[in-house]
Amino acid sequence: MASTLDSVINLAKRRGFVFQAGEIYGGSRSAWDYGPLGVELKENIKAQWWQNFVRGRDDMVGLDSSIILPRKVWEASGHVETFVDPLVESLHTHKRYRADHLIEAYVAKHGKEPENGLADIRDPETGQEGSWTEPQMFSGLVKTFLGPVDNEEGLHYLRPETAQGIFVNFNNVVTASRRKPPFGIGQIGKAFRNEITPGNFIFRTREFEQMEIEFFTHPDDADRFFTEWVEACWDWFIDLGIDPDNMRRFDVPDDERAHYSAATIDIEYQFGFQGSAWGELMGIANRTDFDLSNHTENSGSKMQYFDQASGSRYTPFVIEPSFGLTRSLMAFLVDAYTEDEAPNTKGGVDTRTVLKLDPRLSPVKAAVLPLSRNEKLSPKAKGLAADLRKRWNVEFDDAGAIGRRYRRQDEIGTPFCITVDFDTLDDDSVTVRRRDDMSQERIAVPEVVPFLAEALGC
Amino acid sequence: MASTLDSVINLAKRRGFVFQAGEIYGGSRSAWDYGPLGVELKENIKAQWWQNFVRGRDDMVGLDSSIILPRKVWEASGHVETFVDPLVESLHTHKRYRADHLIEAYVAKHGKEPENGLADIRDPETGQEGSWTEPQMFSGLVKTFLGPVDNEEGLHYLRPETAQGIFVNFNNVVTASRRKPPFGIGQIGKAFRNEITPGNFIFRTREFEQMEIEFFTHPDDADRFFTEWVEACWDWFIDLGIDPDNMRRFDVPDDERAHYSAATIDIEYQFGFQGSAWGELMGIANRTDFDLSNHTENSGSKMQYFDQASGSRYTPFVIEPSFGLTRSLMAFLVDAYTEDEAPNTKGGVDTRTVLKLDPRLSPVKAAVLPLSRNEKLSPKAKGLAADLRKRWNVEFDDAGAIGRRYRRQDEIGTPFCITVDFDTLDDDSVTVRRRDDMSQERIAVPEVVPFLAEALGC
Repeated sequence: MASTLDSVINLAKRRGFVFQAGEIYGGSRSAWDYGPLGVELKENIKAQWWQNFVRGRDDMVGLDSSIILPRKVWEASGHVETFVDPLVESLHTHKRYRADHLIEAYVAKHGKEPENGLADIRDPETGQEGSWTEPQMFSGLVKTFLGPVDNEEGLHYLRPETAQGIFVNFNNVVTASRRKPPFGIGQIGKAFRNEITPGNFIFRTREFEQMEIEFFTHPDDADRFFTEWVEACWDWFIDLGIDPDNMRRFDVPDDERAHYSAATIDIEYQFGFQGSAWGELMGIANRTDFDLSNHTENSGSKMQYFDQASGSRYTPFVIEPSFGLTRSLMAFLVDAYTEDEAPNTKGGVDTRTVLKLDPRLSPVKAAVLPLSRNEKLSPKAKGLAADLRKRWNVEFDDAGAIGRRYRRQDEIGTPFCITVDFDTLDDDSVTVRRRDDMSQERIAVPEVVPFLAEALGC
Repeated sequence: MASTLDSVINLAKRRGFVFQAGEIYGGSRSAWDYGPLGVELKENIKAQWWQNFVRGRDDMVGLDSSIILPRKVWEASGHVETFVDPLVESLHTHKRYRADHLIEAYVAKHGKEPENGLADIRDPETGQEGSWTEPQMFSGLVKTFLGPVDNEEGLHYLRPETAQGIFVNFNNVVTASRRKPPFGIGQIGKAFRNEITPGNFIFRTREFEQMEIEFFTHPDDADRFFTEWVEACWDWFIDLGIDPDNMRRFDVPDDERAHYSAATIDIEYQFGFQGSAWGELMGIANRTDFDLSNHTENSGSKMQYFDQASGSRYTPFVIEPSFGLTRSLMAFLVDAYTEDEAPNTKGGVDTRTVLKLDPRLSPVKAAVLPLSRNEKLSPKAKGLAADLRKRWNVEFDDAGAIGRRYRRQDEIGTPFCITVDFDTLDDDSVTVRRRDDMSQERIAVPEVVPFLAEALGC
């Protein structure tokens, strides 16, 4: 039997949420493309995040910094030196793996660390007893060359996190926005990591998207804000419909934390991967003054705050809630995926696939369906769809039996189906069907826009 | 006297629309960062574009494809072979220039082509008579390496246009969305070109953003749709407030068109650059079946449409409206920049800087200003700001004289200032001031949300 995760991946490809990048040329595991429904879902997640964490708060502003930054930024941030992973090669297949991932998979399966390290680990492909090269450190930075010659001078890195673009603009933002700590800067954008083993669908890719906040605070308040942000992040997922039973906090131990972090709590989601079912959805880190101090030292630009009230100068501490946007999208899909029963036309019941997405996230807000393809019903339905499209993403569908069209909308999470039937021509009313309980009600056509505005909350 | 363009650039940096990327490390001309106001303006432009050209149309769907695509895609698209520019080096300064740009600048200044080609062109920096290396062809593609080894196998390119990500997904979208020509796919995203001479603020950069449409049509209808799209694009800018006197169409002659295009019309904007004042804002190209045919040939995946009604099979032609997002942002800023006169407190008039942005684009929709910093006025004003922030980007400002605070909002294009004064405590009303004519009216607090919703159109 297919797992929920397999069913979600299948649905995502079939209905145009996610396609494999460069599929016609054999595909790439490095990245994925978001189809017509995927891009709408992703945009809705971004809009909710931006409204909740940036526009909607009086202590936050937004930023959109560039992907390619000079090498000096990544030297100062510590990434050139420390953003490395242990790479090993199987002597059986000559494929390359991250040593720490092999060990993690062993622990997940056996419940304990391997006694003899890599020597205990079998080749994941052949099952043969392990035979590995010595681990070599491998940089996760993706490099490129700008300017006419491929030399050191032109060497730049694609950002592995959006965060550094925020830190190097700290003084710019403080001055232009007249802000003072505690305040934060939010950013949504692409990041790139040269992962050795991309995999698990859109979970681990070389090109991905992040939604990051760098919250600047007096050092004395850092612990309090850390706790507050963990709660705020957790609540955001719950408010948008994630089942709390599928999330957990993971207090990352000292030896597993990133080089800049004094404390990290990951929020994990139960994706249902083979081996270890749980995966990191986001992390909240206390980056202390690591970044601002390093950039001050390396650039000569003082990144400190002078508090006129107390007359004291300090380097703010940074609390960083860092969300995986593409991982969040995957979690919303997995969590919304439901199979239940719906009556069929023969008096029995069929299995129904329904994405119970929060309507704010649904890629299509409403589908307008003429009961049948008919010269009177179709224009009426098209006119209504055109009206609704001024405000929402709306589909028009007149192909096939009405029950089958409902199912098509259910499985992409459309909260409302609006049916135009022959009575509509007389009473100027339509039948509105709700996705989750399949209940129906009759609504006058002029009332459809206010009804949807109320139900969709926008 | 500073030109309007200089004033806009100055304002953009000072108020946090645009910062130089990596400024604290000496900066990069390759890219720019968008500050708190810039990111809101950019998001508003994207939202208007997406609603107008994608969500709001029944013949369009969206897509979000990856930035890094396998080399094969760029071989098939013709970019590896033909996306090259002639590079020359000054023998005086050893700086590099694009030969065609030097010639263009000459033509703009002298009104004719140089008789002896490059030999007539003086060094732009020293003014010395020209002394140039022979032009060499230089690839505009930005390359990177994925996977553990920097070799041919790992060579990938960052996309120089978002378009190819659309073409390679043509079959995926047709199948998943059950679409047939005429229909189009829209996409917004970053693109990268290894420009030899980035410059003119955010006009020519190595990292930039595009908003692109690939519209697929039967070859017989291509000319008609080409004309329709030129009109639709022109109208979009006008509707959002660009003065038509500052725009013009340029029918790109045969020898200047991109390798894939059978016809191109550029829409240019009068940015006010030194030398040639006009710059390309966007282009509409008839890419014919160039891309789909090439990908069919190179990938073996047939990118054709079988029309069941007529029983005929054809490769669709593609009409491509390609907008520069960052260039559009620059045009909206330049066009909105106005200096007029406003009364000052001494009974005279001062010069007032005001960004007359369409309110749909304004980064801040309203500013809530307590008349003075006061223990009764401030909480009331903060409460109102918090209410409005549930829906719009809103500023609260209580620093300085009210007139000065109005000016601060005028120069960032905030359409409404809402003043909470001592009467507010009695009558629960506020004074709403309009940006452009500075007229004021008194509005009851509970009426502020509906008033703004009506005035802002959302």
